Amino acid sequence: MHELYKWPDQKKCAVAITFDYDAESPYLWRNRDKDWAGIGEYEQRKFGPRQAIDRILDLLEKWEIKATFFIPGYVAEQYPETVKLIHSKQHEIGLHGYLHERVDEINEAEIEEAIIKSKRIFQELTGAQIRGYRSPSWEITNDTLKVLKRSDILYDSSLMGYDHPYWINDIPELPVQWLLDDVVYYRHVGGGGRSTSPNNPMNVIDLWKQEFLGLKEYGGLFMLTMHPWVSGRGSRLMALENLFRYLKEDPDIWWATCKELAEYHQQSHQDKFREYAPNTKELNRSRG
Amino acid sequence: MHELYKWPDQKKCAVAITFDYDAESPYLWRNRDKDWAGIGEYEQRKFGPRQAIDRILDLLEKWEIKATFFIPGYVAEQYPETVKLIHSKQHEIGLHGYLHERVDEINEAEIEEAIIKSKRIFQELTGAQIRGYRSPSWEITNDTLKVLKRSDILYDSSLMGYDHPYWINDIPELPVQWLLDDVVYYRHVGGGGRSTSPNNPMNVIDLWKQEFLGLKEYGGLFMLTMHPWVSGRGSRLMALENLFRYLKEDPDIWWATCKELAEYHQQSHQDKFREYAPNTKELNRSRG
Amino acid sequence: MHELYKWPDQKKCAVAITFDYDAESPYLWRNRDKDWAGIGEYEQRKFGPRQAIDRILDLLEKWEIKATFFIPGYVAEQYPETVKLIHSKQHEIGLHGYLHERVDEINEAEIEEAIIKSKRIFQELTGAQIRGYRSPSWEITNDTLKVLKRSDILYDSSLMGYDHPYWINDIPELPVQWLLDDVVYYRHVGGGGRSTSPNNPMNVIDLWKQEFLGLKEYGGLFMLTMHPWVSGRGSRLMALENLFRYLKEDPDIWWATCKELAEYHQQSHQDKFREYAPNTKELNRSRG
Amino acid sequence: MHELYKWPDQKKCAVAITFDYDAESPYLWRNRDKDWAGIGEYEQRKFGPRQAIDRILDLLEKWEIKATFFIPGYVAEQYPETVKLIHSKQHEIGLHGYLHERVDEINEAEIEEAIIKSKRIFQELTGAQIRGYRSPSWEITNDTLKVLKRSDILYDSSLMGYDHPYWINDIPELPVQWLLDDVVYYRHVGGGGRSTSPNNPMNVIDLWKQEFLGLKEYGGLFMLTMHPWVSGRGSRLMALENLFRYLKEDPDIWWATCKELAEYHQQSHQDKFREYAPNTKELNRSRG
Repeated sequence: MHELYKWPDQKKCAVAITFDYDAESPYLWRNRDKDWAGIGEYEQRKFGPRQAIDRILDLLEKWEIKATFFIPGYVAEQYPETVKLIHSKQHEIGLHGYLHERVDEINEAEIEEAIIKSKRIFQELTGAQIRGYRSPSWEITNDTLKVLKRSDILYDSSLMGYDHPYWINDIPELPVQWLLDDVVYYRHVGGGGRSTSPNNPMNVIDLWKQEFLGLKEYGGLFMLTMHPWVSGRGSRLMALENLFRYLKEDPDIWWATCKELAEYHQQSHQDKFREYAPNTKELNRSRG
Repeated sequence: MHELYKWPDQKKCAVAITFDYDAESPYLWRNRDKDWAGIGEYEQRKFGPRQAIDRILDLLEKWEIKATFFIPGYVAEQYPETVKLIHSKQHEIGLHGYLHERVDEINEAEIEEAIIKSKRIFQELTGAQIRGYRSPSWEITNDTLKVLKRSDILYDSSLMGYDHPYWINDIPELPVQWLLDDVVYYRHVGGGGRSTSPNNPMNVIDLWKQEFLGLKEYGGLFMLTMHPWVSGRGSRLMALENLFRYLKEDPDIWWATCKELAEYHQQSHQDKFREYAPNTKELNRSRG
Repeated sequence: MHELYKWPDQKKCAVAITFDYDAESPYLWRNRDKDWAGIGEYEQRKFGPRQAIDRILDLLEKWEIKATFFIPGYVAEQYPETVKLIHSKQHEIGLHGYLHERVDEINEAEIEEAIIKSKRIFQELTGAQIRGYRSPSWEITNDTLKVLKRSDILYDSSLMGYDHPYWINDIPELPVQWLLDDVVYYRHVGGGGRSTSPNNPMNVIDLWKQEFLGLKEYGGLFMLTMHPWVSGRGSRLMALENLFRYLKEDPDIWWATCKELAEYHQQSHQDKFREYAPNTKELNRSRG
Repeated sequence: MHELYKWPDQKKCAVAITFDYDAESPYLWRNRDKDWAGIGEYEQRKFGPRQAIDRILDLLEKWEIKATFFIPGYVAEQYPETVKLIHSKQHEIGLHGYLHERVDEINEAEIEEAIIKSKRIFQELTGAQIRGYRSPSWEITNDTLKVLKRSDILYDSSLMGYDHPYWINDIPELPVQWLLDDVVYYRHVGGGGRSTSPNNPMNVIDLWKQEFLGLKEYGGLFMLTMHPWVSGRGSRLMALENLFRYLKEDPDIWWATCKELAEYHQQSHQDKFREYAPNTKELNRSRG
């Protein structure tokens, strides 16, 4: 009964390597109403732009991988040279809020403002029109989808409703998933943050390889999401290189940036896998 | 001193493969009083009906396993064709609340209403009388047990008081257990939900094999519970197939649906393993 | 500088196998002020007295191990035959509160009442004077230590200040430790309880073997604590048997019950390892 | 683009073994406003000074490693002989607050008082001027950095902004990181404390070896932080010895105390890796 997603050139699956380049922005957002003074997590997150990003760019170059970087506008303002460097190496850049604002905590006008402002920042830095979007914290609302449409956004990459591209409110959706995210295995911060006992990197890579094989079996999209401040540590990058080596030997993969995935999806799957976000207000009323 | 449970045909243990086909219903229930707008977890859970369920049905067919699916009435209404398909493939369907309501948060009339309403939905979809029950979140109350009796329910499958069938208030109880559940190893959702760092599927399967061997040693029931939106990911299904292959080679297993287990228990163990739920009000008063 | 603890007969370390036979009592205590109705965790904990305890007694008999069971008075009242059976097989029985009351949540008179009442229950059931004590949840107070002294208690086994026997306020202390406890690896309950993603039993046993080797190296006491409702599951018992087999081959172990450990400590280490609990009121005042 | 940190004598990386010798002080600080009576965690933490510290000093001596011990003034007052012993064995001693006060919970005068008081305690015990600092809970503020400067402190070791030494507000910073800390893998305390299911020590060591190899690849500082009350358990020390054996065979390591690292950094990297803590008040205002 279920229909397989069709990939170009008889490929069996697709691989997209993506980075949510958040740096300190989620910390600033989360604490926006607090009079915080401690700089522990703030500095921990600065490891991303200071060291991790260069290592990651080198690794991608070595393995000839074009990745997609989702970058909050605020982070681009703090690190303009890095943004230019990412762009110059032909990686894709996507929007990711201005200050990593959770869209379910702000109103429609604020969502739109963050997108317009961030687009302008990237245009000034790179000359390019950014048309990809991933929501901060992977949370999204109907209002956001409305804003995306009128902002000429080509695709969203925040949801988990399929494990291959689909449509959400007539926008191409390039699905993520928690088990292909680095923070669920690695993130540890002090104080009150959500933390886990850091996993052994080789175990994480083994788990990711299993999911890759599963996605290949079912014709899906291996959308890996990493955060430079988290995955940029030496042991994690060495394990990641092990994964790249493994994947690069597989001839059945279509390697793509998110933009390429979205364009392909638009051309090839116009009438399939169309979903519409629920009208949550009505749903709340009827069930509440 | 302890007495072994007797299985038919000199089998040493029983295996029941079950799915709690919740989809988005627990999310709707949990947030019933909130004015939520974010659709992240909602979409994540839709992966179950959209893709996972078909994969699971295929896998069960390949390994010739008849499973039991516990389905909230609301989910059946959203996915009537899936319910018909499950029924047509001769899997058993059991009740699981209407909107995955925790029974300790609603009153007796509401518990009954959810059961009556859900029975009617399944009757209309499949023509069959549903007589199996598993409580949402595996929580149950004395009031629920009373309702089950007067609703002509054949068995309950929500408690952990033995690791083989027993009686609770004169109703056959087909026990579950947390260590044979998938969410305790795999569930990760954003925001405030109960999440774990996702376990390596091959480690989970290894752990389940150990418990199978333990249950076989002690003559118990290997009652595996999975959730399509959780276990339907590629890597987890491949690991699950590994488990099916392993179990299918063992001649000492009685493979059964929950209904078959309950009927067997009724015939064969009338006078054994009878337990009665405590009168919690009295217990509370006397201890409080 | 540090002094090794001396064991009898040139043994290099001691092994004590203990069980905190709590059954449903901690659940009743924790919810004593709530009007609870759900019986999920209650039934889950009943697995201990219904099935696990017999398996454990068989396993101990097979491996010729005399263990120590710490049993709340309430549990003894619910399962008098089990208490008699444990006693008849020459395992030691120790006190563990009446309803698993945390001693830092009740006053001195209530602590004493729980001990007196429980002693009487065990005397009636077994004819024996119980003189061992382990505090519920391994929490203890100065008031408790005062009560223990005037209640003719021979030893306490609740603290972690050494990894061999010592003195606390002139009472022999037989130290426990979290890493030799089963619940920190295995406990998973529904709803709001403290839960972990259940660990692979063979990994837990491997970890316990490592700690055994470490304790042997440093001349310590391998005090293993398990809970029947948690460790009585098939896979965990098979792994435990693996540990017993391993330990039984080691000629350097002194196998002892807690009572034997306490008596030995009293005779052999009168002037060593004496510690006194802080006057917490003074400490609170001076620091507060 | 990124510049490697240069180590002396063509070494490829540095290794610093450090201990945060907290004992009971964080417990006293955390509960300073509560009228606590339970001594469970208090005794658990006393395992550090009573047994663990001697084992650790022996192990360091056996492997000829000079470590750095960060010790709260209060702990030094409780265990003066241990402090003298550590000093006499030529390990470095660093400041770590007086009662392990989190600096984001006290004001500038209190931060300064804790440092002055602690310096005096160590001077009296060892005759030495302590010039190293690590903040309790690895949290730090601008006020703290100001105090460090006027207190003649040579370095700080609390932040994670690089994985090699850098400057923070013109003070040498010797970075720590969570994945090279023991508590994130091992800490388990009763009641409400932050706890994890204790990790298998051999798995932790394997993970640390991977990070060592990663740091060597990228020319970083392997700054390992342990807590005697946590890492002093037998199994963990045996695993740690395994790590020492492994590291000692590597000719590419510069072994250093924190003081040596800071002095080297000052001489060799005057103009590199200079960072300034954000003015958090302004940042809060502008974003808030």
